[in-house]
Amino acid sequence: MLLLGPTEDLEEEEEKREGPVEKDLGIIGLGPAGFTAALYASRAGLSVVEVGLDYGGQMGLAMEIENYPGFEMITGLELADKMKAQAEKFGTKIVYGEVSATEKLEDGKFFIKSDMGDFIVKALVLATGGRHRELGVPGEKEFIGKGVSYCATCDAAFFKEKTVIVVGSGDAAATGTLALSDVGAKMTYWVSRSDYLKCEKIYIDRAKERSNIAILYKKQVTEIKGTNTVEEVLFSDGTSLKVDGIFAEIGAIPNIELAESLGCEIDEGLIKIDDGCRTNIAGVFSAGDVTSKIVNPLMRQITTSTGLGTIAALSAAEYLQGLKTKQY
Amino acid sequence: MLLLGPTEDLEEEEEKREGPVEKDLGIIGLGPAGFTAALYASRAGLSVVEVGLDYGGQMGLAMEIENYPGFEMITGLELADKMKAQAEKFGTKIVYGEVSATEKLEDGKFFIKSDMGDFIVKALVLATGGRHRELGVPGEKEFIGKGVSYCATCDAAFFKEKTVIVVGSGDAAATGTLALSDVGAKMTYWVSRSDYLKCEKIYIDRAKERSNIAILYKKQVTEIKGTNTVEEVLFSDGTSLKVDGIFAEIGAIPNIELAESLGCEIDEGLIKIDDGCRTNIAGVFSAGDVTSKIVNPLMRQITTSTGLGTIAALSAAEYLQGLKTKQY
Repeated sequence: MLLLGPTEDLEEEEEKREGPVEKDLGIIGLGPAGFTAALYASRAGLSVVEVGLDYGGQMGLAMEIENYPGFEMITGLELADKMKAQAEKFGTKIVYGEVSATEKLEDGKFFIKSDMGDFIVKALVLATGGRHRELGVPGEKEFIGKGVSYCATCDAAFFKEKTVIVVGSGDAAATGTLALSDVGAKMTYWVSRSDYLKCEKIYIDRAKERSNIAILYKKQVTEIKGTNTVEEVLFSDGTSLKVDGIFAEIGAIPNIELAESLGCEIDEGLIKIDDGCRTNIAGVFSAGDVTSKIVNPLMRQITTSTGLGTIAALSAAEYLQGLKTKQY
Repeated sequence: MLLLGPTEDLEEEEEKREGPVEKDLGIIGLGPAGFTAALYASRAGLSVVEVGLDYGGQMGLAMEIENYPGFEMITGLELADKMKAQAEKFGTKIVYGEVSATEKLEDGKFFIKSDMGDFIVKALVLATGGRHRELGVPGEKEFIGKGVSYCATCDAAFFKEKTVIVVGSGDAAATGTLALSDVGAKMTYWVSRSDYLKCEKIYIDRAKERSNIAILYKKQVTEIKGTNTVEEVLFSDGTSLKVDGIFAEIGAIPNIELAESLGCEIDEGLIKIDDGCRTNIAGVFSAGDVTSKIVNPLMRQITTSTGLGTIAALSAAEYLQGLKTKQY
């Protein structure tokens, strides 16, 4: 049995024993939408708990961010650290835990069940973002961590002087390809399923200037082969490439499961919200990539997430204000 | 007659003589929505001119920003400088000029007339923000600059050891009141027309802790009196206050005139846009406080403006892409 440290751990242990912790607002998700909602809600005087496992969300995976206004260049984790500290400064309690269930209680409050304790809140902001999409081909699962990766910017450093494939046409594939080139991958094949790329054009211009990047259009992966690690990737046109690794950067699947279990309306696989970031369930708000406002994948940006996080928090504060008196 | 400097001025003079400068995208407005649209559009490979007079927009007037994620504390002008430099880095041409007219030409392009030269662009982003609202009472115009001000954070320093009134219930009034207290105003009367305040609650908590701030509810200014400078302010309830200055922080009037002249649909005084920041006029996009997406004044935040600026730029790029071939 582990010995608990004398301070924080004991406190947390106590909280667990005493049952759910009550707060005004619960935010699920540790990406820019969640942190911004936490910042605004805390400043609005609400007690806030923000729960999540995926630190920084999709932003946390970005090696070099140069399109968030105010920072010429910053990493995703650095920006996450700043956003987190800012929310905490105003009182937000951050919990690194996996939320397994959320439920609306009879009194209108919400129950949040996590492996780091349970919470009861008066309103909820779902900022659950997305998780990586898989290729769904033979060999993929077998070689995860042995040449198959879903985050080029995370794992690029392992592929110095190696030959790799990046699959995808969006910003994540683009920045991943450039990151691999930067760390000195011998050759990076940037492979798009269609006859065009959907990322910011500046990335394509940069990739074309690199001698260790080749862009291949209309290539669809059908199989990943190897013995202990990835050795070869096959395509539907009958061709193949001998490579040491393959990065699937083919977008994210929105994490809508908690929203569905609460009865939130889903629109084209995304949580449906109005201009006030309200779902159809009173007291449940949503922000970021998981929402119907970000229907175009190109719009999955830090700026759009912080914008929606702001609105979700203000709407939640308005909702909670309505539950009390109107006057401060 | 003024002698022109040898470099920039001559170049600009030449541009004027040679007729309108052509660019892919014209952005009107130098606030966070405009700068972000410029950043994203430039990175998308568009040639961009951004024209405006009001540097930083409403953000430029803010003394202390602590709710823009990533910066614990920054001034509006510092943040504007960073955003401007970032847009310029990717090629945006910034022009400090007043736009007097915009017009859709027969070939589908747009003409921008400004006192710093004219431009012809293939698409337009209107990020024109707002301008201060006036009280509309006797004495107001007479004493502008002589005790009447519309920007407490700009002019607070002139009122050290003075007694002042701040009129308004939103964030601008709140931060203005605190700025006056910070610089050492003897007493600041924070006056709300209604029986509540609409700003972030944290500002009210801070104001209540200060001995040189008094919050007065249900007070409506009816007249400003004085000889050379402001001396007294009268209220509709028959009371009056002897003061040295009065700051009207009662919100902004959206700058929709250019949009109206282009035939853009207006909704409750704001430019009507869809989720892609498209107006009803093909090729005309809009972002920021001037749009129908920011119908609640509380949502006039830097985050919401950068979010909409991003979307407007991406939609404009998509529109221009549609005018050319689809493939990069």
